[in-house]
Amino acid sequence: MYRVAIMGATGAVGLEFIKILEQRNFPVKSLRLLASSRSAGRQLKFKGEDYTVEELTENSFKDIDIVLASAGGSISAKFAPIAVKSGAVVVDNTSYFRMQPDVPLVVPEVNPRDVEWHKGIIANPNCSTIGMVVVLKPIYDVAGIKRVVVSTYQATAGAGLKAMEELRLQTIDVLAGKEAKPKIFPNQIAFNCIPRIPQSGGIDDSGYTSEELKMINETHKIMGDNKIRVTATTVRVPVFIGHCESVNIETRKKITADEVREVLSKAPLVKVVDDPKNNLYPMATMCAGQDDTYVGRIREDFSIKNGINLWLASDNIRKGAALNAIQIAELLIEKDLVRVP
Amino acid sequence: MYRVAIMGATGAVGLEFIKILEQRNFPVKSLRLLASSRSAGRQLKFKGEDYTVEELTENSFKDIDIVLASAGGSISAKFAPIAVKSGAVVVDNTSYFRMQPDVPLVVPEVNPRDVEWHKGIIANPNCSTIGMVVVLKPIYDVAGIKRVVVSTYQATAGAGLKAMEELRLQTIDVLAGKEAKPKIFPNQIAFNCIPRIPQSGGIDDSGYTSEELKMINETHKIMGDNKIRVTATTVRVPVFIGHCESVNIETRKKITADEVREVLSKAPLVKVVDDPKNNLYPMATMCAGQDDTYVGRIREDFSIKNGINLWLASDNIRKGAALNAIQIAELLIEKDLVRVP
Repeated sequence: MYRVAIMGATGAVGLEFIKILEQRNFPVKSLRLLASSRSAGRQLKFKGEDYTVEELTENSFKDIDIVLASAGGSISAKFAPIAVKSGAVVVDNTSYFRMQPDVPLVVPEVNPRDVEWHKGIIANPNCSTIGMVVVLKPIYDVAGIKRVVVSTYQATAGAGLKAMEELRLQTIDVLAGKEAKPKIFPNQIAFNCIPRIPQSGGIDDSGYTSEELKMINETHKIMGDNKIRVTATTVRVPVFIGHCESVNIETRKKITADEVREVLSKAPLVKVVDDPKNNLYPMATMCAGQDDTYVGRIREDFSIKNGINLWLASDNIRKGAALNAIQIAELLIEKDLVRVP
Repeated sequence: MYRVAIMGATGAVGLEFIKILEQRNFPVKSLRLLASSRSAGRQLKFKGEDYTVEELTENSFKDIDIVLASAGGSISAKFAPIAVKSGAVVVDNTSYFRMQPDVPLVVPEVNPRDVEWHKGIIANPNCSTIGMVVVLKPIYDVAGIKRVVVSTYQATAGAGLKAMEELRLQTIDVLAGKEAKPKIFPNQIAFNCIPRIPQSGGIDDSGYTSEELKMINETHKIMGDNKIRVTATTVRVPVFIGHCESVNIETRKKITADEVREVLSKAPLVKVVDDPKNNLYPMATMCAGQDDTYVGRIREDFSIKNGINLWLASDNIRKGAALNAIQIAELLIEKDLVRVP
């Protein structure tokens, strides 16, 4: 049994951490809920009992074995090393440590062995990247992957609870004929798509957003193959929960659509839903609250020799964040790696 | 001055025809509004005067020079030849005639000369295809195009006025905690993306929807180059008006992002809006009601030698339908081709 702390317990991912620890019956000996001073004192339920949110400080990690962190990059940058120094292993959902060479970046279905070389911090990948690589990996294993062109349809939950509330309130305003007043998102999100993720900062000189660069760079690191060529366009859509992705794949060897379906139907945490004539294909409404990444609209792309198009949907708060992080923690337990080396 | 008839006058595109004829001061001598018996008798305004909608019959085209048609493929299949036999030229917005070898498929900024060989019917392309080719053509002219991978974010207006109303009513229901009741769309459209266009029928054995095949086949015909390799994934998003597209282009010759911006900034009916750091990029809210196709997020795609990513937004009811059709009619007038050869 483990002493668990959640950093950012009152956020969208933090609340999902608590839910999934309970759903999966994670071996929790004790649970400490950490957040900013604003949220300190709030009561949250875990397995029917009330837990009081405490303010995150440098002393928060005494007698903690596992930290699940999702309180923002700058918070993790400061507190994850402190937690490690206190002897805790940190599974960090922010982007801060992901590309650091001494930090494993792990999706348990793709690169489980990478947890073995952790030095106290294991990074949880970007939500869009996770959904994509769980589907790419089985294809990669049988046919190799030369190039990926991905366009995303990302839900507002990726920007937090307040962003979801902004979608709700803006939608009511727009339907009432009022002007949308963007606060968190830079533009109207109600009944509109915004080709900028994240909503502020993070645009490089070549015009890529940091979300797009994450999908490129993190895919290389997770798949352990820098030769996979990836390009991405990431877009926010007026959806609450559940990221969708249109993925075009050029494989090294020829693979048919049927073979892709077969390979993916055997893949862990992947569910093939591919009967468009009967209106069955992945959607946000289908994946929300589910562990599986749904994949469908699998077609050969006749514009190249070895091309496949597919469409996937993944709960960005669960598999894209909280679930994947907790799976990493479970993997650490299984491999007896819940300790700072 | 010309005697104009509108087939499908009470639909989303029909109403836009009337608006644009007025806005562009089209040389209308007389206007006949045609629709199904259900809509006959309705009054619609054109230049401040009331016009009564008449039931479309085989006798509707007497003394008509130009027919603008947008009443559905089967209606055009039946009535367009009758109109031509009556001496009218038909600009048809349905998909019925588009791929017929003796029918020109025209976007005035791309292939204006194709109107010259019309035999009475000129087809107006698919809305998503129009938005894409007005942006592809200027790039094609300077760098050639080898391959295009496009994913669309298409508004509900493409499925008609009732589909827009379904989005509105479903949104209210979902916000009130009620279950969405899909009628026109096969699945919930409120706060959800549906990777199936059109909403019924049209899925071929390889898994492509007819919308996707239109983007491939019509691009070849309009651009006059079957060697451009195109693949498409078309998706409905919870937006009222304005299609967006994420377009990945492999050119024959190297072209930089700056060169693409320069070429597109000189292109007719194209507007470059590309300052993401200041939250400026094409969006549905930007293009709705506008003639221009907006293009931005222009970036070199480093995953291939000659790659460009871009993002565009186009009013699917205007440039994607009614405006392009009226531009074709204007082109016919300019070239003195308003007659059945």
